[in-house]
Amino acid sequence: MNFSSKLLENAVNEFSRLPGVGQKTALRLVLHLLNQPAHDIERFSDALTKLKTEICYCEICNNIADQTICEICRAPKRDKGLICVVEDTRDVMAIESTQQFHGVYHVLGGLISPMDGVGPSDLNIDKLVERLRNEDVHEVILALSATMEGDTTIFYLYKKLKDFKVQISTIARGIAFGGELEYVDEVTLGRSIATRVPYERSIA
Amino acid sequence: MNFSSKLLENAVNEFSRLPGVGQKTALRLVLHLLNQPAHDIERFSDALTKLKTEICYCEICNNIADQTICEICRAPKRDKGLICVVEDTRDVMAIESTQQFHGVYHVLGGLISPMDGVGPSDLNIDKLVERLRNEDVHEVILALSATMEGDTTIFYLYKKLKDFKVQISTIARGIAFGGELEYVDEVTLGRSIATRVPYERSIA
Repeated sequence: MNFSSKLLENAVNEFSRLPGVGQKTALRLVLHLLNQPAHDIERFSDALTKLKTEICYCEICNNIADQTICEICRAPKRDKGLICVVEDTRDVMAIESTQQFHGVYHVLGGLISPMDGVGPSDLNIDKLVERLRNEDVHEVILALSATMEGDTTIFYLYKKLKDFKVQISTIARGIAFGGELEYVDEVTLGRSIATRVPYERSIA
Repeated sequence: MNFSSKLLENAVNEFSRLPGVGQKTALRLVLHLLNQPAHDIERFSDALTKLKTEICYCEICNNIADQTICEICRAPKRDKGLICVVEDTRDVMAIESTQQFHGVYHVLGGLISPMDGVGPSDLNIDKLVERLRNEDVHEVILALSATMEGDTTIFYLYKKLKDFKVQISTIARGIAFGGELEYVDEVTLGRSIATRVPYERSIA
């Protein structure tokens, strides 16, 4: 693209580094920002700088937080013996919004993915083992994505944790609510038949 | 959404103010940035701040520039008597990339749109009239979008400029190269027949 200004070009290049943002979209965003009042842009760049410099990761669960211990780990009503292992903070938010989980979390910060050069040592796994060793944990739920990377990570975690006296479970996989049988892929459908549940349990 | 951190929430809110960016996309972008090195984020927020504080608008054509007069208006080879009127800097970039235009530009900064509260006085029209009055202009090309707002603006500009001794033209409308006749809408097809050009001219 032929930019009429170096400053414009710089800003567009910065935006187009974001995932899923091409040069045309970046230009649209930058021109939109340029039409906003100066203090709006200042607030934007302030929020970005503060994000990186002031944000904390919870010392217990590694979730993004404003303090050294996150709100969930501080909450007295939460069951500290029930740990839900997730990939990142987005998954914490998704599970929290269901209001079905009353334990605490452990954020891995990624999944094992040799293709992307992410090995077990890049993840927050040692701290999880330490939690199991030092705290009175009765169950670990592995709530990871149903992908190759997710399954690999679940398998690795299972091998690491199976010697502890703790129940290890994974979240249920099957047909989503509202899903029509004929459109479901065979693997999911096959597994959902193999792991069928008694009707009384499914409505509990 | 339930954010685990106020700083995270602020950054997501700033991003989701951008056009076409919802809360989920904003969160994805912010988490991506959070994984980048600190100096990358600093460069990002720097580019934004500088964009607003240091950018200039060309005193002649109103295009975005790094100096008070933009490169196109400064170029001695450009035909200063041929002015192409466009909506914004994106259109300048699009026309420049065709390498078919050797005149200069005039950037309106928008289109007349009563629905959005944009009237003629909000656009850079007075300066265009001044240019016609003071400079030796022989042709004005109105290269605006083929929308309601574009047509309204063209009509307004035509009434403003028609008393000057200058040729006023609009860019050709018709079927795009690679377009198949049967899929073209009736208005475009009808107009393209009404404004047909002799074959010798079409290959010139």
